[in-house]
Amino acid sequence: MTELASTLRYASRMDGVGPSILREFARVTLRPGMISFAGGLPAAELFPVTELQAAAVQTLEKYGRSALQYNDTAGNPALRSKIAARMTAAGAPTEGDNILVLSGSQQGLEFAAKLFLDPGDVVICERPTYLGATAAFNSFQAGFADVAMDDDGMVMDELLAVLESNPRSRIIYVVPDFQNPTGKTWSLERRKALVEIANRYDLIVVEDSPYGALRFEGEHVPPIKAFDTEGRVLFLGTFSKIFCPGFRIGWLAASSEVIARFNILKGNADLHTNSLAQAELNEYLEMYDIEDHIARIRSLYRSRRDLMLGVMAEKFPKSVKYNRPAGGMFTWAELPQGVDTRILMNRALERNVAFVPGAPFHAVGGGENTMRLNYSSMPEDRIVAGLDILAEVLAAELSG
Amino acid sequence: MTELASTLRYASRMDGVGPSILREFARVTLRPGMISFAGGLPAAELFPVTELQAAAVQTLEKYGRSALQYNDTAGNPALRSKIAARMTAAGAPTEGDNILVLSGSQQGLEFAAKLFLDPGDVVICERPTYLGATAAFNSFQAGFADVAMDDDGMVMDELLAVLESNPRSRIIYVVPDFQNPTGKTWSLERRKALVEIANRYDLIVVEDSPYGALRFEGEHVPPIKAFDTEGRVLFLGTFSKIFCPGFRIGWLAASSEVIARFNILKGNADLHTNSLAQAELNEYLEMYDIEDHIARIRSLYRSRRDLMLGVMAEKFPKSVKYNRPAGGMFTWAELPQGVDTRILMNRALERNVAFVPGAPFHAVGGGENTMRLNYSSMPEDRIVAGLDILAEVLAAELSG
Repeated sequence: MTELASTLRYASRMDGVGPSILREFARVTLRPGMISFAGGLPAAELFPVTELQAAAVQTLEKYGRSALQYNDTAGNPALRSKIAARMTAAGAPTEGDNILVLSGSQQGLEFAAKLFLDPGDVVICERPTYLGATAAFNSFQAGFADVAMDDDGMVMDELLAVLESNPRSRIIYVVPDFQNPTGKTWSLERRKALVEIANRYDLIVVEDSPYGALRFEGEHVPPIKAFDTEGRVLFLGTFSKIFCPGFRIGWLAASSEVIARFNILKGNADLHTNSLAQAELNEYLEMYDIEDHIARIRSLYRSRRDLMLGVMAEKFPKSVKYNRPAGGMFTWAELPQGVDTRILMNRALERNVAFVPGAPFHAVGGGENTMRLNYSSMPEDRIVAGLDILAEVLAAELSG
Repeated sequence: MTELASTLRYASRMDGVGPSILREFARVTLRPGMISFAGGLPAAELFPVTELQAAAVQTLEKYGRSALQYNDTAGNPALRSKIAARMTAAGAPTEGDNILVLSGSQQGLEFAAKLFLDPGDVVICERPTYLGATAAFNSFQAGFADVAMDDDGMVMDELLAVLESNPRSRIIYVVPDFQNPTGKTWSLERRKALVEIANRYDLIVVEDSPYGALRFEGEHVPPIKAFDTEGRVLFLGTFSKIFCPGFRIGWLAASSEVIARFNILKGNADLHTNSLAQAELNEYLEMYDIEDHIARIRSLYRSRRDLMLGVMAEKFPKSVKYNRPAGGMFTWAELPQGVDTRILMNRALERNVAFVPGAPFHAVGGGENTMRLNYSSMPEDRIVAGLDILAEVLAAELSG
């Protein structure tokens, strides 16, 4: 963690808080010529720029003054209804009143922490997990415990053992669809089992699903929220991966009780999400079929995944294991024990190739021999060129 | 405070947290036919809708993909430079690196609380003060102490006494320009004195200035930030009152040390502010002279202030005292002791006139005989009609 200058007294919750490794890293990976598998960026060439221009003009013509005024904390009612319809179509019947628009789903992680965590309460997460979530929970002085995953999600026996040894467990945080960072997806059975365990242990489930709509193959699995019987599941969704991230529009789907409290936290935090952006997104959804757009994203990402996995199969040393994600933006590689991917990262950066070492995705340590690779943002020729170099870096290390 | 349904366990910081009276109130005041002096809404008829349409089209043409991608947590560099230039012109020399773009200045209040307040730390504020600030501080379990104001700002002797009796004082929160709710402005001398006291007592000053550019008369006074010698002043600004609030773009101006920590909190909270909105605002500032626009706002608000004060002088009972603000959006009325403006409010609402009772603006109680009146958002004929009714309601009460 970078040392911060400190001449003032800060709240004690800031003691363990430092800059995000990913955001610090972003600067390096923006170097000209860098082939980056490091970020979690959607493919910018698919952003609907022309359509958005038309939607922006029409929104200002139809709703100019009202869209620019202070607005409802919970969000644009028409947009909330459309989001509820998407949730319903995904298998979790939802009304607009049970949706709250967020300034990106990251904001939902912050609010979940603020709403449910006293200092020292424990968040249980997947091993590995999304580090933006652990950062948000950590800033409210959470403790962490993690649970191994197999190809169906968290290993339930290990989850139960972790719960027994962590009586202050409060939140279970999961990314069940094409997880960041591993690309793994939870099975239907595990989703149902998780809700039962949450009920039994009086826990909150934070279901973070930024990639749920980006399935390339296999059958859709309904969100964990679909099986929620006691209002314990907070579903976080976002338009960042199916529309564009710069808009910062995400949502919470939850019980009325939780929505009412998020509404208060949202009012305190930023009053409401940019209301012109909400109105423009709503207009875009009325003018165009976002399903067509999502189909184009899926098609591109699927072909890039195939390309990446193909080159890895051909050129990576056989001792490197990696996942075949059925959707989303990432794969995850595991090297033999003892290899430190932070050292490999520096060697790759010298040759203008970037990836993220896996250790920071581990909430309670470990994972030094792992790495995350993103396939959504680089064009095909650079994927091949970058993986060629990475294969050489890996081969030199693993034969050394 | 409205009772919230509660079947789940929440963090202890939520114990004293409830819905905002102002936001609950907003629903009533949106009733058709309501003449509202209650809100804090800018005049929507001045929103630069056509100009924004042109700026939006041009932004998407010039920067489409990059403005829609994930972006810097601190904000658009060109916009940050322009904000720094505004700060410099206002008397507080500032570089772009010392600006962090926020999702509205309310977000700066939330982050200041998160950064500096341990539970039980005391926030010192003006009596009365902005209730969106006390709500944000309260959600981090702050205690409060308040200090009386005269026409030059906080009464310094009382501030010193409050500091001596509150050893856990940590933040002094002030709205020094055309304050919400009173319309009062701090003198130059008080600003300098406040910085000296903050240095002496190891305090943080949160200077919240949403209305600073809206001066109708008298000489500009530099921000408190201009006199900051130890990096203890956090200046919060916003485009909500000089451009439009729906955009949710505000800023922090602060030392590098504080900016670095806000950057982390911002990353955890929502990654960054809507980057298309930032790019559009930056484009608007390049295409048009916002000073011309602000001059139009000032001119309209000044004439509405004059109209409001004129009608009040003519028709309100003489026992009602009120301020003559030199800028901003509000005046503040004080009725004889023993009058409860919440009862008057209900009588006014029955006749379709709304104002906000003053008690909620008092962080530690009192102010039952006070009320806030907004003059920026109602057209002239409705200002007159509404004040006529209000004068009758007041007369009936004060003669009764």
